Amino acid sequence: MKNIKIIIAGPRGRMGREAVRLVERTDHFQLIAVLDYKNDGKMLADLGDFPNVNVPIYTDIEQCFQENDADVLIDLTTPEVGMTHAETALRYGVRPVVGTTGFTKENLLKLEADCQEKKIGCIIAPNFAIGAVLMMRFSQMAAKFFNDVEIIELHHDQKLDAPSGTAVKTAEMISAVKEEKQQGHPNEKETMKGARGANYDGMHIHSVRLPGLIAHQQVMFGSNGQTLTIRHDSYNRESFMSGVKVAVETVMNIDTFIYGLENILE
Amino acid sequence: MKNIKIIIAGPRGRMGREAVRLVERTDHFQLIAVLDYKNDGKMLADLGDFPNVNVPIYTDIEQCFQENDADVLIDLTTPEVGMTHAETALRYGVRPVVGTTGFTKENLLKLEADCQEKKIGCIIAPNFAIGAVLMMRFSQMAAKFFNDVEIIELHHDQKLDAPSGTAVKTAEMISAVKEEKQQGHPNEKETMKGARGANYDGMHIHSVRLPGLIAHQQVMFGSNGQTLTIRHDSYNRESFMSGVKVAVETVMNIDTFIYGLENILE
Amino acid sequence: MKNIKIIIAGPRGRMGREAVRLVERTDHFQLIAVLDYKNDGKMLADLGDFPNVNVPIYTDIEQCFQENDADVLIDLTTPEVGMTHAETALRYGVRPVVGTTGFTKENLLKLEADCQEKKIGCIIAPNFAIGAVLMMRFSQMAAKFFNDVEIIELHHDQKLDAPSGTAVKTAEMISAVKEEKQQGHPNEKETMKGARGANYDGMHIHSVRLPGLIAHQQVMFGSNGQTLTIRHDSYNRESFMSGVKVAVETVMNIDTFIYGLENILE
Amino acid sequence: MKNIKIIIAGPRGRMGREAVRLVERTDHFQLIAVLDYKNDGKMLADLGDFPNVNVPIYTDIEQCFQENDADVLIDLTTPEVGMTHAETALRYGVRPVVGTTGFTKENLLKLEADCQEKKIGCIIAPNFAIGAVLMMRFSQMAAKFFNDVEIIELHHDQKLDAPSGTAVKTAEMISAVKEEKQQGHPNEKETMKGARGANYDGMHIHSVRLPGLIAHQQVMFGSNGQTLTIRHDSYNRESFMSGVKVAVETVMNIDTFIYGLENILE
Repeated sequence: MKNIKIIIAGPRGRMGREAVRLVERTDHFQLIAVLDYKNDGKMLADLGDFPNVNVPIYTDIEQCFQENDADVLIDLTTPEVGMTHAETALRYGVRPVVGTTGFTKENLLKLEADCQEKKIGCIIAPNFAIGAVLMMRFSQMAAKFFNDVEIIELHHDQKLDAPSGTAVKTAEMISAVKEEKQQGHPNEKETMKGARGANYDGMHIHSVRLPGLIAHQQVMFGSNGQTLTIRHDSYNRESFMSGVKVAVETVMNIDTFIYGLENILE
Repeated sequence: MKNIKIIIAGPRGRMGREAVRLVERTDHFQLIAVLDYKNDGKMLADLGDFPNVNVPIYTDIEQCFQENDADVLIDLTTPEVGMTHAETALRYGVRPVVGTTGFTKENLLKLEADCQEKKIGCIIAPNFAIGAVLMMRFSQMAAKFFNDVEIIELHHDQKLDAPSGTAVKTAEMISAVKEEKQQGHPNEKETMKGARGANYDGMHIHSVRLPGLIAHQQVMFGSNGQTLTIRHDSYNRESFMSGVKVAVETVMNIDTFIYGLENILE
Repeated sequence: MKNIKIIIAGPRGRMGREAVRLVERTDHFQLIAVLDYKNDGKMLADLGDFPNVNVPIYTDIEQCFQENDADVLIDLTTPEVGMTHAETALRYGVRPVVGTTGFTKENLLKLEADCQEKKIGCIIAPNFAIGAVLMMRFSQMAAKFFNDVEIIELHHDQKLDAPSGTAVKTAEMISAVKEEKQQGHPNEKETMKGARGANYDGMHIHSVRLPGLIAHQQVMFGSNGQTLTIRHDSYNRESFMSGVKVAVETVMNIDTFIYGLENILE
Repeated sequence: MKNIKIIIAGPRGRMGREAVRLVERTDHFQLIAVLDYKNDGKMLADLGDFPNVNVPIYTDIEQCFQENDADVLIDLTTPEVGMTHAETALRYGVRPVVGTTGFTKENLLKLEADCQEKKIGCIIAPNFAIGAVLMMRFSQMAAKFFNDVEIIELHHDQKLDAPSGTAVKTAEMISAVKEEKQQGHPNEKETMKGARGANYDGMHIHSVRLPGLIAHQQVMFGSNGQTLTIRHDSYNRESFMSGVKVAVETVMNIDTFIYGLENILE
């Protein structure tokens, strides 16, 4: 496979640092420059975290694209900056893979139009955890065949809100395709309040909080004589990088605009 | 929803009896006759198992279709009989849902041609356990995004062969799409022989046998910082019936030939 | 091992039938008679369910013990009958293993005194599911070392009450030994009511209900960097029989009174 | 509760650093000095890792105990040094909690004699992961009631040996109490070599290796109609600290010698 030449924007952020590591350890990925809002003219190696990564740092994106012939821009900055970066990259024929949230509908339409004009790919992904994205997608598919489903999400006990955002999003995705049904026995009753969990359109959601746990979710479907369980365990931030890798590889092979990693799964 | 009028072939077999129960308890399904190789002229209620199910028993399939205006034939007999039954049903404009294995390629081509001519649906499904079918399909989809996967199948200790047929079929389906890779550390070594399980194209399969267990399988995918697990638990024969139900409902809405339940999932 | 000669009271009930099967398939157990409230003078084989079990049926317990030299009485009848049976057995030097609930404190004291006088064992066990008893006992032991625990119980969707009796009993047993603590983050909040489950003395209990499930419970303990999970899956009534077997073997080796299977675990 | 005054030996090692953190965040623990083989006369705060922990560093253990009135010595050094440290601590009336392996039988007997003479407690624990210790102990207890058990251990794919040391130790502990039995069906056969895992005294052990996983083990017991599962998930090194905490608290309340954390569980 030919090397994919990559520029990373935001290389000093938490996600950005992981992305640098990802590109460095992937054989057919090649980091050629980074975009930062400061440190212009230095080398990434100068900043301490990556003493062996000798690529130039740019603060001016135009100059960066002019001086480097990149295939892909991985952007892990902020929504505002991400939009400008993506537009500029497309203008230079560089395919954007953007991992920030907060794009407006107008932003998305503009980028889609730019893709069509340039006939190159662009991927915007608010969630790069490919395992979580697959869990949600499979749950939605399974919901067409099972009328009964419960969601158990388990997190460390420092988490403040229950249920988790992923659990709610999963329930929404299931609800969009599943026959509506108030689950459990019609006459069931709680002898202790809350035992049956939260109720979302007839589905029940349970939030477990324990020290030691990290971020886990289990979606259980049941019908006569069988259960089907889909579970995602996220142990650390590295889990996002498999999604970035897939997105970079995919963006090279498409000439359209894709929003959401779930849409490149098939 | 309009009632679906159903004939069941093989009503006294293990699967057939479950199918009678399924049809009886499903509001929009209506059993109108059964096909058996004996007991011609009696009523199903006469045979003892279903004292309240007053539908006629036929041994002659032509007579059965002539005297009953059926929508669907559910066939749970044998491969040889199943083929004849399916062909005859199609000739009478009745949609077959056949749950037997062992069809030849020629059989399948013949049935496909009959469907095209009659412009009605026909579904042949060697495995009606919809949860298991989904598990295999999801595993295949996930394998495009995860290079590492292990299969753990767990059965009662009366099972003779290891690994189970479902585990092998899952491995085959994954292998068909996954990048080849010898998993585990290149220098890993077993200090006790067999610890790392069976090796199928670099994937490892583990067979657990314990009294109490029934039929369970867990497919685990891993990448940096995360795991994705897809698990099916089958507790009894009833689990096959959700697949039969889906097939009956689907066959009414298609005018093509489908082989394998996995192909009606989307 | 010398054969243990056994009389079963209540051989036609659901549990009684399982007990007959247990004794028949256990090499060193020997069924010599059964007690029933009717069918006096017949053989168990005459009743249909056990055509090969040729042991006499008695309705008179005195006559039964006079004519049969038994080691153990397995009683699976009702609380009132069970008390009379246990007292009579002890009077004849036969060790009772009783599986009914509802004994009064006076009943228990009376049986304990009878044991001391006769110097033989007697076991009363309201719950014979040894796996469930172990789960509860281990949970209690673990609670001394973990301040945080949540209980997830999962049952079929025909179950009316939530949480299950076993979950409540487990929480009570844990609460009796654990340092009191309101678990979860002090500022956690439910964005959907009930998400965090029921609250028992600061512990959270979650009740999952799905068709397909049978009777399952998972007790999860967490502390920094680790979780410990104890899970019991009950698939059918046979699960009670391992507890009966242990009780019969144990009652032969003790000369005291034991109430509750958890007290013979060590 | 009165504060427990603590000296830590080996404060710069991986475990030692965690122990410093543990003592600092535990209300009734108080760090009063540390033992190191260098940096004598400095303060722990001077070394950089713990800028706020102002306790003196000693290289001379005699001087350390003479100048500081400690209750407990936590030793996380090496076997040779650990033995000298433990003996010296006992001589000064300080209770040792030692987390190193490799003590000889003579070492242990000597320490036991010292404890008896001084009438104070001493705990030597080769494994401080309390969850793992509980898993092994519960497995041993359950093995008295279940003849069938399989062990599944799951680790990251950088692990070289299979099965893991913990899995082997668990099997040994179970084997010491369980009736011997060749598990699985007598006529079972592997259609793919290794499927049934490693065989230890008739028990089967399965080693799963996947990137993303950390260190996990599941012990499954089965009998008619039920399974009992005991699982430990270790996510990071912090998991050892709960065991250190328990040991420190326990050593204050005993006047005997204990080898192995499993022996303080009850």
